[in-house]
Amino acid sequence: MASNSFGEIFRITTFGESHGQMIGVIIDGCPAGIFIDESEIKNQLARRRTAQSIFTSGRKEDDSFEIVSGYFENKTTGAPITFIIKNMDVKSDDYINLENTFRPSHADFTYSAKYGNRDYRGGGRSSARETTLWVIAGTLANQILLQNNIRIKAYVSAIGNIATQKNYQQFDFNTIDSNEVRCPDDNCATQMIEYLNDLKQNGDTTGGVITCVVQNMIAGLGDPIFEKLQSKLAAAMFCINTVHGFEYGSGFAGASMNGSKHNDLFNNVNMETKSAETTTNNSGGIQGGISNGMDIFFNVAFKPIASIKQEQVTANVNNELSSLVISGRHDACVVPRAVPIVEAMTALTLLNAFLKNNAYNNLNLK
Amino acid sequence: MASNSFGEIFRITTFGESHGQMIGVIIDGCPAGIFIDESEIKNQLARRRTAQSIFTSGRKEDDSFEIVSGYFENKTTGAPITFIIKNMDVKSDDYINLENTFRPSHADFTYSAKYGNRDYRGGGRSSARETTLWVIAGTLANQILLQNNIRIKAYVSAIGNIATQKNYQQFDFNTIDSNEVRCPDDNCATQMIEYLNDLKQNGDTTGGVITCVVQNMIAGLGDPIFEKLQSKLAAAMFCINTVHGFEYGSGFAGASMNGSKHNDLFNNVNMETKSAETTTNNSGGIQGGISNGMDIFFNVAFKPIASIKQEQVTANVNNELSSLVISGRHDACVVPRAVPIVEAMTALTLLNAFLKNNAYNNLNLK
Amino acid sequence: MASNSFGEIFRITTFGESHGQMIGVIIDGCPAGIFIDESEIKNQLARRRTAQSIFTSGRKEDDSFEIVSGYFENKTTGAPITFIIKNMDVKSDDYINLENTFRPSHADFTYSAKYGNRDYRGGGRSSARETTLWVIAGTLANQILLQNNIRIKAYVSAIGNIATQKNYQQFDFNTIDSNEVRCPDDNCATQMIEYLNDLKQNGDTTGGVITCVVQNMIAGLGDPIFEKLQSKLAAAMFCINTVHGFEYGSGFAGASMNGSKHNDLFNNVNMETKSAETTTNNSGGIQGGISNGMDIFFNVAFKPIASIKQEQVTANVNNELSSLVISGRHDACVVPRAVPIVEAMTALTLLNAFLKNNAYNNLNLK
Amino acid sequence: MASNSFGEIFRITTFGESHGQMIGVIIDGCPAGIFIDESEIKNQLARRRTAQSIFTSGRKEDDSFEIVSGYFENKTTGAPITFIIKNMDVKSDDYINLENTFRPSHADFTYSAKYGNRDYRGGGRSSARETTLWVIAGTLANQILLQNNIRIKAYVSAIGNIATQKNYQQFDFNTIDSNEVRCPDDNCATQMIEYLNDLKQNGDTTGGVITCVVQNMIAGLGDPIFEKLQSKLAAAMFCINTVHGFEYGSGFAGASMNGSKHNDLFNNVNMETKSAETTTNNSGGIQGGISNGMDIFFNVAFKPIASIKQEQVTANVNNELSSLVISGRHDACVVPRAVPIVEAMTALTLLNAFLKNNAYNNLNLK
Repeated sequence: MASNSFGEIFRITTFGESHGQMIGVIIDGCPAGIFIDESEIKNQLARRRTAQSIFTSGRKEDDSFEIVSGYFENKTTGAPITFIIKNMDVKSDDYINLENTFRPSHADFTYSAKYGNRDYRGGGRSSARETTLWVIAGTLANQILLQNNIRIKAYVSAIGNIATQKNYQQFDFNTIDSNEVRCPDDNCATQMIEYLNDLKQNGDTTGGVITCVVQNMIAGLGDPIFEKLQSKLAAAMFCINTVHGFEYGSGFAGASMNGSKHNDLFNNVNMETKSAETTTNNSGGIQGGISNGMDIFFNVAFKPIASIKQEQVTANVNNELSSLVISGRHDACVVPRAVPIVEAMTALTLLNAFLKNNAYNNLNLK
Repeated sequence: MASNSFGEIFRITTFGESHGQMIGVIIDGCPAGIFIDESEIKNQLARRRTAQSIFTSGRKEDDSFEIVSGYFENKTTGAPITFIIKNMDVKSDDYINLENTFRPSHADFTYSAKYGNRDYRGGGRSSARETTLWVIAGTLANQILLQNNIRIKAYVSAIGNIATQKNYQQFDFNTIDSNEVRCPDDNCATQMIEYLNDLKQNGDTTGGVITCVVQNMIAGLGDPIFEKLQSKLAAAMFCINTVHGFEYGSGFAGASMNGSKHNDLFNNVNMETKSAETTTNNSGGIQGGISNGMDIFFNVAFKPIASIKQEQVTANVNNELSSLVISGRHDACVVPRAVPIVEAMTALTLLNAFLKNNAYNNLNLK
Repeated sequence: MASNSFGEIFRITTFGESHGQMIGVIIDGCPAGIFIDESEIKNQLARRRTAQSIFTSGRKEDDSFEIVSGYFENKTTGAPITFIIKNMDVKSDDYINLENTFRPSHADFTYSAKYGNRDYRGGGRSSARETTLWVIAGTLANQILLQNNIRIKAYVSAIGNIATQKNYQQFDFNTIDSNEVRCPDDNCATQMIEYLNDLKQNGDTTGGVITCVVQNMIAGLGDPIFEKLQSKLAAAMFCINTVHGFEYGSGFAGASMNGSKHNDLFNNVNMETKSAETTTNNSGGIQGGISNGMDIFFNVAFKPIASIKQEQVTANVNNELSSLVISGRHDACVVPRAVPIVEAMTALTLLNAFLKNNAYNNLNLK
Repeated sequence: MASNSFGEIFRITTFGESHGQMIGVIIDGCPAGIFIDESEIKNQLARRRTAQSIFTSGRKEDDSFEIVSGYFENKTTGAPITFIIKNMDVKSDDYINLENTFRPSHADFTYSAKYGNRDYRGGGRSSARETTLWVIAGTLANQILLQNNIRIKAYVSAIGNIATQKNYQQFDFNTIDSNEVRCPDDNCATQMIEYLNDLKQNGDTTGGVITCVVQNMIAGLGDPIFEKLQSKLAAAMFCINTVHGFEYGSGFAGASMNGSKHNDLFNNVNMETKSAETTTNNSGGIQGGISNGMDIFFNVAFKPIASIKQEQVTANVNNELSSLVISGRHDACVVPRAVPIVEAMTALTLLNAFLKNNAYNNLNLK
């Protein structure tokens, strides 16, 4: 079933395999008349790219994009905007031995079971290369949100067992990119880097947690019952391949709190500006599925990536067990690179909520 | 924007307020020719109902449903099936003072900010009474899944700080309902009950965690990229009012594991039966967004419910602070009652994935 | 597959069978804060109702509706608004002999073939009684459009072979309801009435054409390629059971015209007010799938209703041929009653287009 | 609002402007394991292409497509299949003077009014070049339908005032392509060709009618109420730029018939094979929105294309009137080229209905 589109009003559709000819994204429903900030897209792609540090894979992805539709004389036209990226530095030979073999904890088996065949080169359609396209579209969405004052920022809050004990209010978001792991807690960052160095030498990998914060929100985004804002955000985050957990506001910790402590007392409400101020923010900026104007914040847990350099036993289509060593170029930890991906999926989600809410603004009614 | 429907193939649409005339659910896309097991629906509603134990609210909800369409001579007809429940035991007077006052951590402020007005009686549309309808529809969905062999079971794994240390394989699911808190770990259950007794005396509330397991799965459910099975499950769980966290497979703990330990090695794969067996199951039965035939399991974190009996300071529409004591009838902990709700939303999600997958079965192709 | 919902932003979902306990419609996505003009809904229902004239069936439908959700203190709340109508004057006995017999040109066979069973009483789900619900929802949609200045008017332009030769500009729309057939051309109306009297005596039926006009349009409604406004209008009209044709602007006649005559020359364009004036309007107010501000107009062709009082040969589930005389109460011509149905479906379509377009208004962009 | 996707299960998304870098289509939800018959796609594209005869425009469109995703080792993989066509023979200079001028009966004004700007080169996004992509995707859909026995055939039944008096049963569909106008009635074809020759000399254009027939149908495709098969087909046809009318079965003529003559009497029904045979087929193979197994047939009316070579008066963005002569390369009549487009949109519609219906096949139920 068709499943490669995200969003209802501002909708993206993606295509392409890791080692195919090209990958691309169609952005449908973008407001007309916008200048696309290509340099900001390049910035965000650079943040996502492999080979940016010692912990990430050696593949030099060429993320040079072309805009091939929907953009005319430096303005969006309301028509679908298409970005394509031609695949260059592909080494499919690394994957030939994977034609009939299922890498552990990859999508190899499930794709084969569902479809009968698969493009096994470089992970094919299930490769994280796909997320390049999300970052492109998300950066454009973010540009629109920013002009409407909404600001999204994500950072790494844990890698392996090393987790910052500070909360987001204690950080200067401008420092996020000041270290290789995108953790604004300097002490933690140092430990994380050391840990990843060790892991890399062992050919092993680990996971981590990204915290994302949305500031300058207005109240009213999200819709009750089955289109709650947290439901949409969770759905978006679990589109990211390695995500295994999502929590917002008090999250899992909230499950062990008492209501008397968990409740967010109102300090101030303003029905004109549609804003509220609460003494605490365990609600994470969302109540009843609708934003209340306080910061939205959430954590996203990433499992370790499955491509380790250690020998593993695995099975093939004929159910024969054999030893597998994955060559190719892979990261020790995907989490620092996933920061712009989390921001992108957040932007796509919020822009849809924003436009849906706007559909009801300024009507003549009585 | 329309937001009261869930599912694409087997789609439910709900309506009604807690203290309105009635609530109801339309089930659209149900296969024809099915006998609806009304007694099983009653069982599940009884599990969800308040007033079943000392920890839950005093309201005696009358969940007597009527089937008013789509069911003829004891068979579904393919037409939309509508269940209605008339609201009986409503005491709206308890809520009169809430017309202009926003209860902390409720949806009162956000509904008012978004819509300008709201039905303040009993929480109106944001009341958990809505979930009665989900349980009805989910039980019907579950009936279809069961006949296709898929089995869904949920239980309480934590309340407040008391959490079972056992995993689901260690439990006999038949014992889940043997205690008031629906925790199959007897020791834990005893402590939870004690804890809730204390809380209730203090007029306080707490949260908890529900674990849900899907057994006898086949490989192939879920679709890549933006319709991943975990994304659909997460979206479903975050429709539940008080849910603040979701994790599947290794979840948040997986974020601190190494790949070499986290990877699930294949023992056995069978391309004919579309099943796989792995030595571990950190993937939680889903790889690349598609079920692999192993058990699916996930945890859902619930915040404490916001209606406490202690005095709180809050604000009203005019931004005046005042003291609020919530009367009405409320639970000390919603989690035991939420077990059938989690099962219902899981069933609705999986049945949609099942039917979508089935659309591609038995085609003539070459 | 779920198929009982219409619209994306302002979405209705309907349920109920002709002779079931009740029928109902959920209106999801209605703006909050609106007073529902129930008396106007009653007016429109009266226009649709049978038994209003000698040409229509003897069934006295009780269209008394109740609003059971989403409406509080005389204002919509943003929650789904549900109208129900209890079925009263049902004579299911008339239909007992239809359990296994397929009435010619009805939905009996196709429902049975698709679903295996069906509610055969009074046409069950395929009965035109369903359209009561559309009129209710459409009248509410129309109320919103009217406050934003858009006016929808439909009338009967042909019954059987009797067709008005005048176009809509020559009519005073206030006279549409001045005769039983809702044809504003008095001469035609007289002939139509005579013709229908004859038909009724013969137990026969006939079809006709309804013309619908939308005035005070603005430019910009509708979306290119696959959501063209004419596509949405056509889809809406073909939801009406007996509709067999739809044409807009020049329609089928346009197919034999030359471009030099068909082209609509611009007299005036105003980019500020988003309006255009053309010397002719063969485009029917829509160009490239988007409204241009000129009147939208279209014709909808209705086949004769299938329930005639004459003896017919037909088949049953066992493929035995037998003679059938349909008793029950049926119209000689459904077209006059279909006028408010066409208006309702037009309103639902345009309101969705209006809200979608509005989602892009008043954004901060650059 | 996003509007460039068609279909729910087998969904296409298109992009690209007439004179942009490339156009493309993503086909999402295609069954895996299919060999794409590229030579058949080329055949169908050739049928759609301009410059195939003296009546069509001089533009030599290079429709050479590349498949850039979703196709691996000559099999579809279940991943989105992307076809791109690079635009070669573009002469944008012809359009420079159209930057601020609105061609009569084109989409120029409405695009400008809706979006504020537009790609004016070659009609930009509103160009019929888009339909190349539909033909590609529709041919693939058709391939799947054919393997499941369903056959779609369209032909030209009228051009200008010249219309065949024969119905489709009288034609040998193999002769459709035997003349330039794709009319299987030889006499008519000769007259049509003569007429188009005259028109071309006058720089004028005309419209026409295409008849489409679907044979070897099974009963059960389509869904009641708002997803009726005729509603879906109509919606599909009105996506074609110049379509102004659609009728199925008896169509507009049915509106003047009596029920006693219009009713299709059953000869034979077979509940096992889900097929029916009726003496007449005024229902056009669809009853109650669901196919009954008889042939589906419908007519689609096309207005004359708006680009005539005669001088016309028109307006620009500043509301100044001026004389316009459209240069460029344009057809005298689009209808012969539209035959494969109608077939393609029919195939896309039916394949979706087929897959939706199949979702309910072979379930275990009781």
